[in-house]
Amino acid sequence: MRKVAIIGIGQTPVSEHWEKSLRELAGEAIIAAMLDAGRETADGLFVGNMLSGSLNRQENLGALIADWVGLRHTEAVKIEAACGSGGAAVRAGLMAIASGEMDCVISVGVEKMTDSKSNETTAALATAADADWETTHGLSFVAINALIMQRYIHQYGWKHSDFAPFSIVAHNNAVNNPYARLSFAITELDYIKARMISEPINLLDASPTGDGAAAVVMVPAELIYTNGRPNSRPLITIEGSALATDTIAVHDRQDPLWLSAAEISASRAYSQSGLTPNDIDFFELHDAFSIMSALSLEACGFAERGQGPQLGLDGEITISGNIPVATMGGLKARGHPVGATGVYQIVEVVEQLRGQAGLNQVENASIGMTQNIGGSGAAIVTHILRAHK
Amino acid sequence: MRKVAIIGIGQTPVSEHWEKSLRELAGEAIIAAMLDAGRETADGLFVGNMLSGSLNRQENLGALIADWVGLRHTEAVKIEAACGSGGAAVRAGLMAIASGEMDCVISVGVEKMTDSKSNETTAALATAADADWETTHGLSFVAINALIMQRYIHQYGWKHSDFAPFSIVAHNNAVNNPYARLSFAITELDYIKARMISEPINLLDASPTGDGAAAVVMVPAELIYTNGRPNSRPLITIEGSALATDTIAVHDRQDPLWLSAAEISASRAYSQSGLTPNDIDFFELHDAFSIMSALSLEACGFAERGQGPQLGLDGEITISGNIPVATMGGLKARGHPVGATGVYQIVEVVEQLRGQAGLNQVENASIGMTQNIGGSGAAIVTHILRAHK
Repeated sequence: MRKVAIIGIGQTPVSEHWEKSLRELAGEAIIAAMLDAGRETADGLFVGNMLSGSLNRQENLGALIADWVGLRHTEAVKIEAACGSGGAAVRAGLMAIASGEMDCVISVGVEKMTDSKSNETTAALATAADADWETTHGLSFVAINALIMQRYIHQYGWKHSDFAPFSIVAHNNAVNNPYARLSFAITELDYIKARMISEPINLLDASPTGDGAAAVVMVPAELIYTNGRPNSRPLITIEGSALATDTIAVHDRQDPLWLSAAEISASRAYSQSGLTPNDIDFFELHDAFSIMSALSLEACGFAERGQGPQLGLDGEITISGNIPVATMGGLKARGHPVGATGVYQIVEVVEQLRGQAGLNQVENASIGMTQNIGGSGAAIVTHILRAHK
Repeated sequence: MRKVAIIGIGQTPVSEHWEKSLRELAGEAIIAAMLDAGRETADGLFVGNMLSGSLNRQENLGALIADWVGLRHTEAVKIEAACGSGGAAVRAGLMAIASGEMDCVISVGVEKMTDSKSNETTAALATAADADWETTHGLSFVAINALIMQRYIHQYGWKHSDFAPFSIVAHNNAVNNPYARLSFAITELDYIKARMISEPINLLDASPTGDGAAAVVMVPAELIYTNGRPNSRPLITIEGSALATDTIAVHDRQDPLWLSAAEISASRAYSQSGLTPNDIDFFELHDAFSIMSALSLEACGFAERGQGPQLGLDGEITISGNIPVATMGGLKARGHPVGATGVYQIVEVVEQLRGQAGLNQVENASIGMTQNIGGSGAAIVTHILRAHK
């Protein structure tokens, strides 16, 4: 299989972009990534998006966006795996290059959520869950995660406040990210006193949605020296890439507190790259809700079963900790424009590996991992990136 | 690149399946294809679907369907390219195999459209067009095609009745297809007197939507002898596969009567396979509207520009003609469950190449082509399949 390198990244701020359409948002991220890569064309475009049909009344995003960014006639499709769509679009681009069908691919994640009424957005987000066996019975997506968190607290004996570090660290890191939606710090008291959304999930356990787009340009690593890579940058390759699924309905799982799809996709990515959790310098995990941070850390081998929150309490998830997470704010504070999130994660890992993360730079970062989750653990994509310096 | 073989096919009737859910429909086609292939597992599942978010309030179809058919934990995503989603899902599966990432892939197309009110379906189908520049101005998807047909009739001097053979041939062929939605023959008089929908498109120019699913099982051709292929069947390989895009809005095209994306994707598929239009034994084209049949035949090199209808008038598109189309009924009479259609086309080509097409068998068929169109020519996928006997 041809190894894939990432040579360009671009992103828009996660915000309420009322003045920009879906295609304009995607275009802004793509053009930035192409400029960054020094490329003017591509062989394929993979668009990660979940909600455009429901919220923007627009499908056929591949053709729409390819034309908008000056890639008329280029192969282009949309990839959907709920909130894991962005990571899945990167993986689709990787397979297109690995197959030999394409020599330069753009994967973009885009979502425009704030033009809709909030009840419409809530209903649209619930399409990530099982329509026949969860949603029709009145469960919103937040409520499903609340049930999981409630059970987790009960089973492993944590207090709600033990989850505070996940949110505090993410907000702290977002302060230095110009693309973050919530770029302000919070305290433990803010966390404890936050408005309840769906018990035990409060406002500061949940990530904010938003409008945004992020893009990467990928080429075969073997071609990189002919593709105009600026010499000042390290070669960044994708060493591991895997997607696994689980039951879409949480009640169908033997253990609702274990993300099997995270375990499987991470272990495949470890095995492809010859790495272990000990080798990972930082981890852009899918902190849509603080409970998901704990479950991801456990399933990927960074904490024992039921012990995820301890990493936060021990200070291990900060920039200078043993396993920094959400280094640019994560879903919690950078924001979660759902279909775009997986690409934001990859972009942020590249920033770290290039040493462009500013005040949030993880020292000597050379291996970064992302994990993007669609549904309540139903479709999970893991990527491991490495800088060759 | 590893060459890909199709070793299993399955389909449901295109119908109003009120008693079956989206996942049950997809499952029926997938299980049939797996039984046909003699396989019980797969490394990946690619789901072609356009409207599940809008009409079924269900996304995350990859995880949903993988679990339902007994492939829990298997990699699975949804691919969307409007009505070209099915063909795009087959192509995604092909690239996954070619990349070396997977050794057995299932691509399924599924759509469930008849549970919704017809105005909801019409609005959802319009998401294939440009939401900002076509749909918001009141153009439905049928209306866009009507404008194209009107212009075509004006520019090339045809009469409306000259398009009759496209519909008559499709309906004739559907009579012998147990999976067809409209399995009855029609006469030229029926065609001429059919109720007007959006001038000049009448009821018999337009394909019926419906509920349905179709699936294929694909493996690397090099592995076929170890994969339990029954010896009585020919090896069927994909010799050409390409997807190209065009502007999503028809008014942005220099010539609204020319399908550039069809020309580009077909010429790539010809070039990959070393074949020309003369080598194609039959052509499963995208006859969503009769005007699309004419435009496809022209863009793919079977007729001169503006001369597509002549092939119908000359009897060349019937089973015994020079370039048979819609051999099992096409979109027009087999039916058009939009995201599933592209996979139905592939399944039907395999039936022909295996000699399983019954009364509709194209004699000595060894090379078949499919073309699946998303939007009014915005995303077009072409595949060329060959039987090695």
